[in-house]
Amino acid sequence: MIVHPTFDVESWGVRERNLDLAVLAQTESVFALSNGHIGLRANLDEGEPHGLYGTYLNAFYEVRPLPYAEPGYGYPEAGQTVVNVTDGKIIRLLVDDEPFDIRYGKLLSHERFLDFRNGVLERKAEWASPAGRRVRVSSTRLVSLAQRSVAAIVYEVEPLDDSYTRLVVQSELVANEPGGAADEKDPRAAAMLDSPLLSEQVAKQDRKVVMVHRTRASELRMAAAMDHEIDAPADIAVTTEADPDLGRVTVAVELKPGQRLRVVKYMAYGWSSQRSVHSLRDQVEGALASARHSGWEGLKSDQREYLDRFWDSADVELEGDEQLQQAVRFALFHVLQSSARAENRPIPAKGLTGPGYDGHVFWDTETFVLPVLTYTAPDTVASALRWRHSILPLALERAKLLGLKGAAFPWRTIRGQECSGYWPASTAAFHINADIADAVVRYQNATEDATFEREHGLELLVETARLWRSLGHHDASGNFRIDGVTGPDEYSALADNNVYTNLMAQRNFLAAADAVGRHPESAATLGVDDEEAAAWRDAATAVVLPFDTALRVHPQSEGFTRHQRWDFEHTPPDQYPLLLHFPYFDIYRKQVTKQADLVLALHLRGDAFTDEEKARDFDYYEALTVRDSSLSSCTQAVIAAEVGHLELAHDYFGEAAMMDLGDLEHNVRDGVHMASLAGAWLAAVAGFGGMRDHGGNLTFAPWLPPALGRLTFRLNFRGRRLKVEVRHRRATYTLLQGEPLEVAHHGENLTLELEKPLSRPIPATPSRPTPHQPPGREPAKRRP
Amino acid sequence: MIVHPTFDVESWGVRERNLDLAVLAQTESVFALSNGHIGLRANLDEGEPHGLYGTYLNAFYEVRPLPYAEPGYGYPEAGQTVVNVTDGKIIRLLVDDEPFDIRYGKLLSHERFLDFRNGVLERKAEWASPAGRRVRVSSTRLVSLAQRSVAAIVYEVEPLDDSYTRLVVQSELVANEPGGAADEKDPRAAAMLDSPLLSEQVAKQDRKVVMVHRTRASELRMAAAMDHEIDAPADIAVTTEADPDLGRVTVAVELKPGQRLRVVKYMAYGWSSQRSVHSLRDQVEGALASARHSGWEGLKSDQREYLDRFWDSADVELEGDEQLQQAVRFALFHVLQSSARAENRPIPAKGLTGPGYDGHVFWDTETFVLPVLTYTAPDTVASALRWRHSILPLALERAKLLGLKGAAFPWRTIRGQECSGYWPASTAAFHINADIADAVVRYQNATEDATFEREHGLELLVETARLWRSLGHHDASGNFRIDGVTGPDEYSALADNNVYTNLMAQRNFLAAADAVGRHPESAATLGVDDEEAAAWRDAATAVVLPFDTALRVHPQSEGFTRHQRWDFEHTPPDQYPLLLHFPYFDIYRKQVTKQADLVLALHLRGDAFTDEEKARDFDYYEALTVRDSSLSSCTQAVIAAEVGHLELAHDYFGEAAMMDLGDLEHNVRDGVHMASLAGAWLAAVAGFGGMRDHGGNLTFAPWLPPALGRLTFRLNFRGRRLKVEVRHRRATYTLLQGEPLEVAHHGENLTLELEKPLSRPIPATPSRPTPHQPPGREPAKRRP
Repeated sequence: MIVHPTFDVESWGVRERNLDLAVLAQTESVFALSNGHIGLRANLDEGEPHGLYGTYLNAFYEVRPLPYAEPGYGYPEAGQTVVNVTDGKIIRLLVDDEPFDIRYGKLLSHERFLDFRNGVLERKAEWASPAGRRVRVSSTRLVSLAQRSVAAIVYEVEPLDDSYTRLVVQSELVANEPGGAADEKDPRAAAMLDSPLLSEQVAKQDRKVVMVHRTRASELRMAAAMDHEIDAPADIAVTTEADPDLGRVTVAVELKPGQRLRVVKYMAYGWSSQRSVHSLRDQVEGALASARHSGWEGLKSDQREYLDRFWDSADVELEGDEQLQQAVRFALFHVLQSSARAENRPIPAKGLTGPGYDGHVFWDTETFVLPVLTYTAPDTVASALRWRHSILPLALERAKLLGLKGAAFPWRTIRGQECSGYWPASTAAFHINADIADAVVRYQNATEDATFEREHGLELLVETARLWRSLGHHDASGNFRIDGVTGPDEYSALADNNVYTNLMAQRNFLAAADAVGRHPESAATLGVDDEEAAAWRDAATAVVLPFDTALRVHPQSEGFTRHQRWDFEHTPPDQYPLLLHFPYFDIYRKQVTKQADLVLALHLRGDAFTDEEKARDFDYYEALTVRDSSLSSCTQAVIAAEVGHLELAHDYFGEAAMMDLGDLEHNVRDGVHMASLAGAWLAAVAGFGGMRDHGGNLTFAPWLPPALGRLTFRLNFRGRRLKVEVRHRRATYTLLQGEPLEVAHHGENLTLELEKPLSRPIPATPSRPTPHQPPGREPAKRRP
Repeated sequence: MIVHPTFDVESWGVRERNLDLAVLAQTESVFALSNGHIGLRANLDEGEPHGLYGTYLNAFYEVRPLPYAEPGYGYPEAGQTVVNVTDGKIIRLLVDDEPFDIRYGKLLSHERFLDFRNGVLERKAEWASPAGRRVRVSSTRLVSLAQRSVAAIVYEVEPLDDSYTRLVVQSELVANEPGGAADEKDPRAAAMLDSPLLSEQVAKQDRKVVMVHRTRASELRMAAAMDHEIDAPADIAVTTEADPDLGRVTVAVELKPGQRLRVVKYMAYGWSSQRSVHSLRDQVEGALASARHSGWEGLKSDQREYLDRFWDSADVELEGDEQLQQAVRFALFHVLQSSARAENRPIPAKGLTGPGYDGHVFWDTETFVLPVLTYTAPDTVASALRWRHSILPLALERAKLLGLKGAAFPWRTIRGQECSGYWPASTAAFHINADIADAVVRYQNATEDATFEREHGLELLVETARLWRSLGHHDASGNFRIDGVTGPDEYSALADNNVYTNLMAQRNFLAAADAVGRHPESAATLGVDDEEAAAWRDAATAVVLPFDTALRVHPQSEGFTRHQRWDFEHTPPDQYPLLLHFPYFDIYRKQVTKQADLVLALHLRGDAFTDEEKARDFDYYEALTVRDSSLSSCTQAVIAAEVGHLELAHDYFGEAAMMDLGDLEHNVRDGVHMASLAGAWLAAVAGFGGMRDHGGNLTFAPWLPPALGRLTFRLNFRGRRLKVEVRHRRATYTLLQGEPLEVAHHGENLTLELEKPLSRPIPATPSRPTPHQPPGREPAKRRP
């Protein structure tokens, strides 16, 4: 039986009151801390037991060969895998010579709490050793949002028995930890790498150790350092050791009840593909000095301040569903953690919370994560898109290899090279290029960041538009076709004129042409002339949009609605996800969708469909969508809300938001699902808030389901801060900061002025029959 | 620069007058001998120099893992690779202590001759050693068509100098020879296996050595044995040695000019997955005893007799193109060699002439090779189809794994398991199942072999029909669609309603239903009832046949003609074959065909097209077909002839026939192309003879191109032997043996009676504009 973690429902954190070893790996992901640069899985301080060790540095990877039974031209020869770097989390404890290990002796109590406002992971335990000695252990861990290279732990031990207790604390830096066992049969699990780090230097001084390693094949260099403040009301003996793969500071002390040993461990990390051993060593020792200068209290208060600012402009409040309230904040917290200090590095699908998907970044960053950050932490979006811009040379090269013009961004990567070994679901999924362009357009609209557009956005738009122009062609009737591509739905592949792809390419064309119009000089340096921009506009106008006139729905790609319907009735529950039980051959050729594809077009290109089309299309694809992907329920929530199926939207919202807290896909052990977490916000804001941003206009069409009493969310937009409060009959819009702003409420234009709330009534939802999902694939009901 | 072998043009053999080391590997394939059970590449007697060592036993293979960068459900985990077994060809020679090695000393003359009538490979050489000693060496090698387990070599040495010459001949059996270097970047080359054989027993007696080995993973056991007759007008010292991987009989003698050492080497081979070491050893020693009993002369005369019978009923005579005359006999000789004694084992794509394609059998056996053998050596067809029947349990299992009913035969295999690591071009190419059914129907029609039909044919037809019924579905309009499959053209994949596939499935359905009608009781034991047969007929009637009404041609699959045309104009010659220079993604989505697909349908399902459609379709696909496959030119020859482009047909005939003699695809080193060789016969008989067998009727529509003066071919049909002679204005039909027979000549029915030739005039060809091929892809002209 698969066991999933259970947590207390609290509004500002996740609390676990019992340690269940069966779900240890899952909780390591859920409780992971990160600032987008450093990621620490919630491995127990003492290192064992563990699910999967994990300490990550954004974009620090090793390469591995990609094997093929039958090679083909253009197949990537090497993959990239996130590396579990030198682990500074480990603090072992001996109690009268017996190691503190919760598998032995008796665990009297154990509690962990992930604190969204303070940005720390707290742990408290009481334990009796096999010999009966009792201790109280507590630790608080943070990965600093203010100081990018720094993490810290406060570790405290207090004997609970009447007599003196001998305590030894060993604080370590460990390189090349043995890997956890990734399930190699599951393509979603990461390839584990054994001993990826080669020692280059190790040094110690007082209570400080610094270690420099590099990877074998990717030749990246990293440094990790630790230093300590140790405090106890007794004599303390401290020794410091440093071996190539092990740094250790040992603290021995004898305490009586009421006395407490307190160790503050400061850690600093850095990596580089270019900097020398010495400069990297100096870099982390410098960061360590800065951390010690701030001190634990300073780090903690900076953390709180950073998060207070974030919640002020990003918080979502929900009345009527406490679990969702918790989940949506949990989601925002992890999305922020994944991106806050990524600084021109990618935001991977799992953030820095686990080795899933090899640590790769995919299209879902641009399509799900960045839309959230655009309105909640826009600086992180500029950073993420600058990373895309930084890999443009590789994307241009890849396009050339594929016989195309412009840029072909990798389907999955860490450093920028294509790392997918199965081209029908990667290389062919060209929509990622339009997704990147769409993220550029959205960020641009929401921030009016002219420098970004000129220096990075324009080129991203131009090179992706060039890609589409060379990928598509005009047929004899003058229609612009994009054949043989794979859309978002991974249960179809290599189809002609995928509606989502074509519509996103259309937006890409027009946005590129518009940007060229705004920046003619910069465009000229990219070689764009009026003829080229005109060719983009022409192609945009002529893009094929298939429609099934008999069924009066859009086929997700040409011919889709003529395919055989999947035999849902005879597919038992244990045969999902289908990809693990049926061949791609069978799945691709039938009407079954893994995830929103046409329905995602209804959301992101809602401006291209009538209300009636949306309702009919949503209904049609509901019956075919099995949600074997975590990238589906949030989009279904958004469109369900738009077409008036509010309870269904609530259910999908719940599924998106609970993906990780409920381990709905049984793989949270490999890391949290950043896009689904982002989807929780989308379900709230784009779903029940009805927020859209087509053409740069901020519009709302809120509707609450019966079970929710109130929804409040905050947005950043063009230097303003905005609050939207939705109740059943009224919505209230408040401009919290900035110049007056035009928005729309259910089609009515409103001009918001500072601190002058405007309330408007909410119309009744259209009455439509409830759509049906494939048998057994209905979302869990949020209310009985 | 790529060098290709050149041979003398002779009508009954292939002669090479100079040994060119640059093309050694190519000639090893061209001169290979086989009986369908044993295959010997034409490695030089003395073993070195060599291109690729090769001694094969049909269906004797080793398994190897198939790796995937991203695994998927139903992907085969293991492949199968033909093994280079114990080599009995090696006869080394020392001339006054200096090894006879043509790379040293001086090769005064060297000639090899592959004799189609005697079925032997002759070699004659004169050589001066580095010390100046001259010898004449000759060998004649045969793989017995009469005695399945037997091969033999006569090896003679004669000193040419005035004084005595010391000669040592070492005749060997060598296991685990080092492999040649297959080009691993080319997916068509075989994976080489190092030391695949584990010794189980070795024994010697007198001049005989026997060795038993088994493979590591596939656990197949093989035995090889050799014995010798040695004759010289002088004292002979003979020693026999036997090590686990080396058996050696050494003959030392001193001869004067005019004297000759003659060694007759008999070899016997056998293998089994079940029989014990002792029984296999006895089996090969028994075969050896039988060979010695026949003696060299007996083996040779049996060989001649076997081949005389074959040529009597299979020969094709051509006047006006001597090279083609040679090539078509070369082709028939190799096709016979690949199949003669295969006896319920497969006929691989390369026969037993090389390690290409890992020794696998594909659809081309049924589609190209068996149609030739059906009319020239029908017993071999029954054998090949019995092999298919023998792997039915695996095909049923595979279908089940794929979620289908009936049988899904493997795209490539040796033992019967699917061995392809790239499903879009294998699993999805379901047409192989209809191709097998078609071969059954053709054999059945041509032989009226009722036992075969009842015991093997019926079940093959039923289980393939079941496959199609579950693979296709009726759409809302009642059309029967087969979606998401790959047709013969490997430059397209996963398309809907491939015309070839649909039409072949239609024939499969009807043939199965008809066979069930003829064998109701046998059908009942297979669980077929009237309803099931009716469902097949219904589906056959409703099969979708896409047609482009604007272009008035058939798209090879739905939507094909709307795809972008490949940019042939900007594809330089060195970018062919396209698959080595462009990604599948790019190739699949454009209008470019690797090989005849729709045009193959025009041939095999010619009954489903009008003459006008054939002409238009042929014209359309000529402009798109690049012939990067050896399975194309013969079909283009056949249809070019049918629609009246006789010179073009002649050119394609030449390309098909010269594929191996001219090494047109630069890979004959890995083995000859059995299907293209078969295609030479098809180009002659189905092309210029216009022979068709739709519905079991034998019809002819002969037309000769200007350059050919006469074409004569022979056929076996329902116990008759038939001769057809085609001249420019008349065709003459002669029944050589058997009861009167109905045939048709250009639509006119004729009744042929024994030895009463009937002549009929040949109508003028329709006048049509010459079609164009992609630039640079025109076939070589047969006449300037």
